[in-house]
Amino acid sequence: MYIGVDLGGTNIVVGLVNDAGTLLQTVSSPTGRERGFYAVVGDIVSLTQKLLKTDHVTSDPVKGIGIGIPGVADPETGVVISCVNLFWENVPLREALESALSLPVFIDNDATLAGLAEYEVGVMKEAKSGVFLTLGTGVGGGIIMDHQVISGKHGIGSEVGHMVVGESDTQCNCGRKGCLETFASSTAIIAYTKKHLPDYPESILHERIQGDLSKIDGRLIFDAAKGGDAFALKSVHRFAHYLAIGIMNIVAVIDPEMFVLGGGIAGAGDFLLDIVREELEKEKYFKAVPVGKLCLATLKNDAGVLGGAFLAKSKTEKH
Amino acid sequence: MYIGVDLGGTNIVVGLVNDAGTLLQTVSSPTGRERGFYAVVGDIVSLTQKLLKTDHVTSDPVKGIGIGIPGVADPETGVVISCVNLFWENVPLREALESALSLPVFIDNDATLAGLAEYEVGVMKEAKSGVFLTLGTGVGGGIIMDHQVISGKHGIGSEVGHMVVGESDTQCNCGRKGCLETFASSTAIIAYTKKHLPDYPESILHERIQGDLSKIDGRLIFDAAKGGDAFALKSVHRFAHYLAIGIMNIVAVIDPEMFVLGGGIAGAGDFLLDIVREELEKEKYFKAVPVGKLCLATLKNDAGVLGGAFLAKSKTEKH
Repeated sequence: MYIGVDLGGTNIVVGLVNDAGTLLQTVSSPTGRERGFYAVVGDIVSLTQKLLKTDHVTSDPVKGIGIGIPGVADPETGVVISCVNLFWENVPLREALESALSLPVFIDNDATLAGLAEYEVGVMKEAKSGVFLTLGTGVGGGIIMDHQVISGKHGIGSEVGHMVVGESDTQCNCGRKGCLETFASSTAIIAYTKKHLPDYPESILHERIQGDLSKIDGRLIFDAAKGGDAFALKSVHRFAHYLAIGIMNIVAVIDPEMFVLGGGIAGAGDFLLDIVREELEKEKYFKAVPVGKLCLATLKNDAGVLGGAFLAKSKTEKH
Repeated sequence: MYIGVDLGGTNIVVGLVNDAGTLLQTVSSPTGRERGFYAVVGDIVSLTQKLLKTDHVTSDPVKGIGIGIPGVADPETGVVISCVNLFWENVPLREALESALSLPVFIDNDATLAGLAEYEVGVMKEAKSGVFLTLGTGVGGGIIMDHQVISGKHGIGSEVGHMVVGESDTQCNCGRKGCLETFASSTAIIAYTKKHLPDYPESILHERIQGDLSKIDGRLIFDAAKGGDAFALKSVHRFAHYLAIGIMNIVAVIDPEMFVLGGGIAGAGDFLLDIVREELEKEKYFKAVPVGKLCLATLKNDAGVLGGAFLAKSKTEKH
């Protein structure tokens, strides 16, 4: 049995997952991030203790806890280096949880763990290697090879949103320019669409927003594109073009068996997939060689908790 | 005992390597690529047979053959998909060699295998994960994690020269624009320097080439930069800037423990390393987190043969 923790900016969800990968029970509470690190840790501990007292655990003890954070942790020390959403910087998360719970604790990025869940029980179940991309406010990533998440020597692998894929004037949160997430996030497509909409007076988007640019969101853009609006389509193709470059950059490193798209923008479904596949075809560096299969994510809200449990499983089985 | 084969455009070198990784003996002959696939295969077979008859082998039989090619092979079929230098396309290299030699044959890209040699017995010996970059006419790569080369599902991983790192008008051999090798190869720095030299009449390079632009090569540019020539330094910094982006793109995928520079341009030594490190510092997406150590390659001509033998070792030990 394993415990998975999905630590978000809004809620903490803790779940109990058996060795077969079935989520048996979850408990949750609001994160209350304004209360600071130790209060949040206290809640993770009490939620976990609640699960540890259930009947499931008496027959099959918990072997480890895996926790997904919206940030980056040092894989060696278990210190959370940066978690902007929670206002955390250099906090000893693993140490705090291990001393309170007397169980091995493993920490990784939430997108990476959602990818691990897709790999173990989702759409990548049959693949040996796969890459999960969350297309939301930013671009997150989860790379899994042979059942292990690839987070790297310093914990900053699978951060595919920070691959440089082109040149533009838009500054990334990281301080650089040209990062994938400045082209292929919802933030990026919304900003691009807002900026250029005035140049396309014939776009249906004008009618939809009635002069209020703040109404533009990902869904509106994709809906207009599906309806054949030329400007919205241009916006979506630009998004897909840079996403395809990002995918091919990953191919040029590890050439995985599968790519899986998740996050808000992936809600555009097959329409998005078809356009990304079209752009991918143009970006191949060996035209005759296939690249990994491109799919949509299948797991929904449970991916984070499941991913945490699978992380604990992969790490405790390995050692 | 293992056999390593370094198949180049000019020479075929075949070597016998013991289990400890020591190269015991090599034999070689000119490639004579104009004779076509089967003639070249015939020579690889007869060179290998020569080594199989030596005393070394009678006491310790050969378990497999690893061969490095200047191109890409399908890891499942062992078919060489493309090997521009040798005029090969879709040739059954593994099948031909296995049927002639009755030993398991493994094929990979030559830069990838040179990286594997650096990992096993060179500068990456103590690392768990490392990336080798050859900076020559093009940019080749070799990624090794846990003693396995990362060549991917379709054989086109570790092709880091085809990561897009920026935008420019220079077309890559692959048909795209923006690939790392259009910025950070000797070809690229020479082309850039030739193009912009007329704008820098004060550059020492004018004196060195006496009006003959064809005299410009990597060594001349780096020597002028070392001497403090402002234009040559600009050229070298541009090269290093894009190389640093390429390195950080690899970090954003696998965040390895080490990066190793090889190939002609790496001859510029510590001077190059210092400038790349300086550019890397600017390209970090988490300023507080260290990135993999950057070093120069240490193995010379034997890296290809050794890498072939280590490939055979890693594959036969695994199965």
